[in-house]
Amino acid sequence: MSLLVVGSVAYDNIITPRSRADDLVGGSAVYFSVAASLYTPVRLVGVVGDDFGSEHVDWLASRSVDTSGLEVVAGGKTFRWTGEYSSNMNQRETLSVELNVFEDFRPKIPEPFRDSRLVFLANGSPVTQLEVLDQVRDPECVVADTMDLWIETQRSDLEALLRRVDGVVINDSEVLQLARGDQLLECGRRVLDMGPKFLVVKKGEHGCILMRGDDVLPLPAYPTARVEDPTGAGDSFAGGMMGYLGTVERIDALELKRAIARGTVAASFTVEGFGVRGLQDASRSDLDRRYDAYREILSL
Amino acid sequence: MSLLVVGSVAYDNIITPRSRADDLVGGSAVYFSVAASLYTPVRLVGVVGDDFGSEHVDWLASRSVDTSGLEVVAGGKTFRWTGEYSSNMNQRETLSVELNVFEDFRPKIPEPFRDSRLVFLANGSPVTQLEVLDQVRDPECVVADTMDLWIETQRSDLEALLRRVDGVVINDSEVLQLARGDQLLECGRRVLDMGPKFLVVKKGEHGCILMRGDDVLPLPAYPTARVEDPTGAGDSFAGGMMGYLGTVERIDALELKRAIARGTVAASFTVEGFGVRGLQDASRSDLDRRYDAYREILSL
Repeated sequence: MSLLVVGSVAYDNIITPRSRADDLVGGSAVYFSVAASLYTPVRLVGVVGDDFGSEHVDWLASRSVDTSGLEVVAGGKTFRWTGEYSSNMNQRETLSVELNVFEDFRPKIPEPFRDSRLVFLANGSPVTQLEVLDQVRDPECVVADTMDLWIETQRSDLEALLRRVDGVVINDSEVLQLARGDQLLECGRRVLDMGPKFLVVKKGEHGCILMRGDDVLPLPAYPTARVEDPTGAGDSFAGGMMGYLGTVERIDALELKRAIARGTVAASFTVEGFGVRGLQDASRSDLDRRYDAYREILSL
Repeated sequence: MSLLVVGSVAYDNIITPRSRADDLVGGSAVYFSVAASLYTPVRLVGVVGDDFGSEHVDWLASRSVDTSGLEVVAGGKTFRWTGEYSSNMNQRETLSVELNVFEDFRPKIPEPFRDSRLVFLANGSPVTQLEVLDQVRDPECVVADTMDLWIETQRSDLEALLRRVDGVVINDSEVLQLARGDQLLECGRRVLDMGPKFLVVKKGEHGCILMRGDDVLPLPAYPTARVEDPTGAGDSFAGGMMGYLGTVERIDALELKRAIARGTVAASFTVEGFGVRGLQDASRSDLDRRYDAYREILSL
């Protein structure tokens, strides 16, 4: 199935207790695309400044990512994020954000992308996410991410969005914030009451929980040997999940569960390297091998 | 296989955001026994005062728990614990502890218990735990629990214990404390280097991780609908695990994994009721049904 992602493309500076790297290509749409394109060709819509190296665009294109929806703003600067992780990688502090061209991003979905069957709305203003939905024609499955900022500042737009999506993939803290509670599963149920057919709660090193109807399916994180840099794990998760859904005949309960397991595996590669490198260096067969190992772990 | 548990027998007062209950029969050996005896008869060694109602002893005996190792101290008072949970049940504060007869507990293992094939040393002073090991004859599998207090105050005795046990079942925070680090899997490896053949890291609502040799097997918690009272979840986990091991021919990697899944299921019943009631009201077939559902959840 055809797969569209709309999200950020960025340069990141990342500081961990062991290392630092600057000017890494990142952003939600990039992490998503690198993961998803291991399963399904990806149509990317995003925006960069003319400081964004064309070699990065070529690199994405070489990975079955259609970059014809990547807008380049002449004289503009690419979104830049600098973050630092705590000693056990469980906390991160944003040291600086320069939204630059992303601040006024109004996604224009190219005509050939408008029939996409699967749509992932990466983290962004819900107003912008709704504008994307107005441009696509009857997709089979729309999944959205969001963040604390939008829950806090644009709740009514976000609620309008939730009524129009099939699935939501957000962090546990965002589930609590969105449902204004402190018990995760209860809050998850309230999020489902807001509209989406399914919710995937991301819990970082503790894995994730798929909620759908009355079903609650927890899965652990893949036990990776070394966490170098957690940046992009959530977007890679969504990419692995949506990319896998692009390969199935019909999205049912079992395929959705397998999809989040595929997302789990993609995220595990991402955290093993700086920026997108951990995932970028993995082949489809590397992912398949780890998926098989993961399935074996969970087999009782 | 025959199964021995040595641990506390107590009266608990438990306060949760929704409710309060006093004088509940609790203690590590009780939670363990109630869970384990659903799979395998249990030999219990513990101590109570003569304030401990004989109906509780009869109740344990009716559940295939051999209480002939339960010492009753004339004129003594039973261990009493009072604890209160935070609004989302993820934190608890001990409001009072009266060790009473448990303070000077020197377990005497009855002669007919000394050939036990499986031994669970519930949380207690490592000196006391070592004294138990001196009284049993060549058990096949010894598993120990411990807590922050002993890690802090009796580290060298605890290290001596770790060299003599097959397995350890402790919380994630205890793993970090024991290995003096802040990365869980790395710390878990260091705990394995201290002697035990396997380590089960309990992570509460986030499930558990079995570490054994180079294998790292995470399993999620069973997604229970309502958490009434988390007291005893860890001991019920150990009970379900060891009770199941009592039913297997040979303890290998697969059976150990199934055992911690059985522990996960036992703990999920415990948290659904106050004190031991949630588990006590469950039958073996209730556990089997939930185990099958859990296996189905994890089947990819």
